Amino acid sequence: MNINLDFLEEEIVGKSVPVATSGQTSGHAAGEPFDVLVFEEIRCQYPGQTFRQYEYLNKLFEENLSATTIDGRNQLISPEAIKLLLARGNSATRSWSVESKFDEKQNDTADIIVDKDEFLNLLDVKTYDEEKKGQAPNIISAYKIASMCKEMIESNNYSSHDFTYIQVDWKKEGDSLEATSLWISELFKSDPEELYINWAAAMQIQFHVSALGQDYRGDIREWCLGFIRTFVSSAQGRVTTMEEKFVEPFQALLN
Amino acid sequence: MNINLDFLEEEIVGKSVPVATSGQTSGHAAGEPFDVLVFEEIRCQYPGQTFRQYEYLNKLFEENLSATTIDGRNQLISPEAIKLLLARGNSATRSWSVESKFDEKQNDTADIIVDKDEFLNLLDVKTYDEEKKGQAPNIISAYKIASMCKEMIESNNYSSHDFTYIQVDWKKEGDSLEATSLWISELFKSDPEELYINWAAAMQIQFHVSALGQDYRGDIREWCLGFIRTFVSSAQGRVTTMEEKFVEPFQALLN
Repeated sequence: MNINLDFLEEEIVGKSVPVATSGQTSGHAAGEPFDVLVFEEIRCQYPGQTFRQYEYLNKLFEENLSATTIDGRNQLISPEAIKLLLARGNSATRSWSVESKFDEKQNDTADIIVDKDEFLNLLDVKTYDEEKKGQAPNIISAYKIASMCKEMIESNNYSSHDFTYIQVDWKKEGDSLEATSLWISELFKSDPEELYINWAAAMQIQFHVSALGQDYRGDIREWCLGFIRTFVSSAQGRVTTMEEKFVEPFQALLN
Repeated sequence: MNINLDFLEEEIVGKSVPVATSGQTSGHAAGEPFDVLVFEEIRCQYPGQTFRQYEYLNKLFEENLSATTIDGRNQLISPEAIKLLLARGNSATRSWSVESKFDEKQNDTADIIVDKDEFLNLLDVKTYDEEKKGQAPNIISAYKIASMCKEMIESNNYSSHDFTYIQVDWKKEGDSLEATSLWISELFKSDPEELYINWAAAMQIQFHVSALGQDYRGDIREWCLGFIRTFVSSAQGRVTTMEEKFVEPFQALLN
């Protein structure tokens, strides 16, 4: 039920965007125009179905103005697993109005949402200077994914959404940045027991999209159980590390 | 032995800097020119003694070119507590040369170092849009501070350095940003048992400089012991949270 994004490589690779005038070209922000470009190409292919996360929520709330309470508004974001991923905080949800809609928020779950055939494609775009890739980036909170998996298992609903990640590499060419490669990976096609959770970095799952294995053969229920197994054992490992590294060596000084 | 920075308020508050041309004025980066301004004012007051962290390390290594090994170079950064705070990683230290010196690094401990009377003043500058202060910012890794405290206690040396934090608030005025207030706080004058450690945010100590209590009456040895007490009990609390929040609710699904 995932949308087809094969067209992206041809549309994006080779395209150029101007370098920001005040800009560091090294930072994360430099590749931002490619995120915009990817959004526009997808919206062009799936018109009326492609949104920024805040646009998706604004549309839902605007089409259901009779929902005015936090609960009433949050129930529009369904099923529960989607609500857990996309809902804003209580105070923001309460104070939403047609005159004061949601705006972009840095820690929103998805850069792009394609809402097609009652299925949400949650897309995230990562852009890189091809010469400076460095450490695998933050993808999403492992706790958020574990909570989502728990909800999906408990409600036995595995067909509401998926996660797709798009990586655009670029290089600087004079006053432009040129896209040199594009990768697409799906979270549920990667082996959940291979995912790396960085507890010190806000419990984020971290990977390079271009390096994410795509040969997992289990179904989504199996993926969810596998992820929870990874999450629990990784949390237990972190607890042990914390005791050995942050408690014991220092406790000795207090006696 | 701390340097006097009372002159900063008069020199900075009321000064304006141009808005970056491509810029978001809301982001952390917008106030960056005030960091530069603070550095220049301090260097003007303490010429020949004021450095960026990478400049300090470059100077140490340049003045001691006979040190060519990792250990030899790191021993120049003394005492041990300072080495722990300022040294770069092994591979960067090994490959340093006069032709390829250190450059600014985002996670350097200090924005500014004033090296005066064999005492290092480690300074950090935080700049804010006065209307959008939000969450207390990352100050420094609690693990780094705990390790430093442990080293200071074990070597019984409490007189090598201190940490001073400078907060500049600004507001947008037309095409400029104008500094509206300035605060200065010292870490060792704040009660170590009141410091907040955000374990999910890379174990960072977080506070607003303007809100940091400055009425601690203990000496630096007592401060170090107090901080270690805070660090250990905070780590133990985080371990409990992790078990209750990240292990137990999910483990049930695996049986």
